[in-house]
Amino acid sequence: MNDERLQQLQAYANRLFAGMLGIRLIEAAPERVVAEVVVRDDLCTVPGIMHGGAIMAFADTLGAMGTSINLPPGAGTTTIESKTNFFAAGKTGEAVRGECTPLHRGKRTMVWQTRVTGQDGRLLAMVTQTQMVLEPPG
Amino acid sequence: MNDERLQQLQAYANRLFAGMLGIRLIEAAPERVVAEVVVRDDLCTVPGIMHGGAIMAFADTLGAMGTSINLPPGAGTTTIESKTNFFAAGKTGEAVRGECTPLHRGKRTMVWQTRVTGQDGRLLAMVTQTQMVLEPPG
Amino acid sequence: MNDERLQQLQAYANRLFAGMLGIRLIEAAPERVVAEVVVRDDLCTVPGIMHGGAIMAFADTLGAMGTSINLPPGAGTTTIESKTNFFAAGKTGEAVRGECTPLHRGKRTMVWQTRVTGQDGRLLAMVTQTQMVLEPPG
Amino acid sequence: MNDERLQQLQAYANRLFAGMLGIRLIEAAPERVVAEVVVRDDLCTVPGIMHGGAIMAFADTLGAMGTSINLPPGAGTTTIESKTNFFAAGKTGEAVRGECTPLHRGKRTMVWQTRVTGQDGRLLAMVTQTQMVLEPPG
Repeated sequence: MNDERLQQLQAYANRLFAGMLGIRLIEAAPERVVAEVVVRDDLCTVPGIMHGGAIMAFADTLGAMGTSINLPPGAGTTTIESKTNFFAAGKTGEAVRGECTPLHRGKRTMVWQTRVTGQDGRLLAMVTQTQMVLEPPG
Repeated sequence: MNDERLQQLQAYANRLFAGMLGIRLIEAAPERVVAEVVVRDDLCTVPGIMHGGAIMAFADTLGAMGTSINLPPGAGTTTIESKTNFFAAGKTGEAVRGECTPLHRGKRTMVWQTRVTGQDGRLLAMVTQTQMVLEPPG
Repeated sequence: MNDERLQQLQAYANRLFAGMLGIRLIEAAPERVVAEVVVRDDLCTVPGIMHGGAIMAFADTLGAMGTSINLPPGAGTTTIESKTNFFAAGKTGEAVRGECTPLHRGKRTMVWQTRVTGQDGRLLAMVTQTQMVLEPPG
Repeated sequence: MNDERLQQLQAYANRLFAGMLGIRLIEAAPERVVAEVVVRDDLCTVPGIMHGGAIMAFADTLGAMGTSINLPPGAGTTTIESKTNFFAAGKTGEAVRGECTPLHRGKRTMVWQTRVTGQDGRLLAMVTQTQMVLEPPG
């Protein structure tokens, strides 16, 4: 992926709810989307501990991006279901990394899995989500 | 549940990431937690459409609250897994309601289900999450 | 639903893997499918305890049936994802009941939830599954 | 893992509901459990197509085995939740392979992921399950 496409996606990530999370895109290719979020106090559930909802929102954004890179022209996407297992806590000040790869890229649905890790590489969460492919109106 | 307890939980909901969501608690009883979030632009994924991550974070907060109301003294809780199905979009300006009820309240885990509805009562999402009960250090 | 339709679905339930489970259909309407399985030794994981896989297969069959009742003529369905929470064990000799109701019945997907209970009414498992609606070839 | 342990687990797999599936263990180590099931007609949902419930039961058995290999002496395990995404159909006569690896092995829970593939290597399903670790009575 060239720098221009990465910048377009970063602009998307800067907006609205995704923007509040402070997602920094590192890589965005058809086979892999990688990004980081630095854990601020206002992303925490109790002081010092990243909110599980912030982790799920981070991953959801990456899965939607991964899908959008693979869509045919004019098509859109929406998340129809998402499943997360949590293993360890993200900590304030830490750069939490999400690496999102496809399990399935079909015509009707795509399924992406995001591996969320802490700065030391420990596994914080695994998120698997299904994206519906929305055809452009005929 | 008396007003004092509701105020304590509202204070909890006002903090940090939950605070960013703008959760307004309506009812918080051992059998049921009900709350609302008004969809602001900065909770959206594209303009006008509530971010799925904001819905998941909203529900996660309610499930943790429901569990905390049922914990024995000194115990804590953490979400170990969460599953969401999405059915319809929340819209900007709309008061989205979450009603969270227990499927299971055991010694080691509790499982809560949050029904997320729009202002007109249509079902937006269903979230099921497992909370681990963390015993106080012996 | 008339008796003839129930008998057709029961014939479906008697075949192949569903037949091995011994599913007995009690009700099959567009809004609700109810059935029972008596726990035999060969449906157990350890002697006396129903295998979680048998519970998931039971529910999967009901969700597919519920969808098929609601399909337009010529359409088919396949399960694209399924999530189960387990709460208590089914016991040998017990008639385990599944009650399957829709959360969503759309043109592209349907989502069904099956409440699995023991003979005394205790909740054994909750299964939520997404069925893809497969249009007939054009 | 020595042959004796593999034979013990195979004997476990031959019993009851797992026995009906015809699971053949190939490898059973603390980091990985691999097994095969040949798709018979009575494991199908419609003729020729493996029942999703059979896939979930197969994976559930492998995740329980992987956990049991890692348990401390005297401890037991039970599945508390399981999530499956389905991608393609297993076909009659085909040897379907499950490769089950841990995402998390903790004191209270273990989480295992089973990659289910067809004989040609295509991905049929991905199953993620949480096992509760049950301490021996004190």
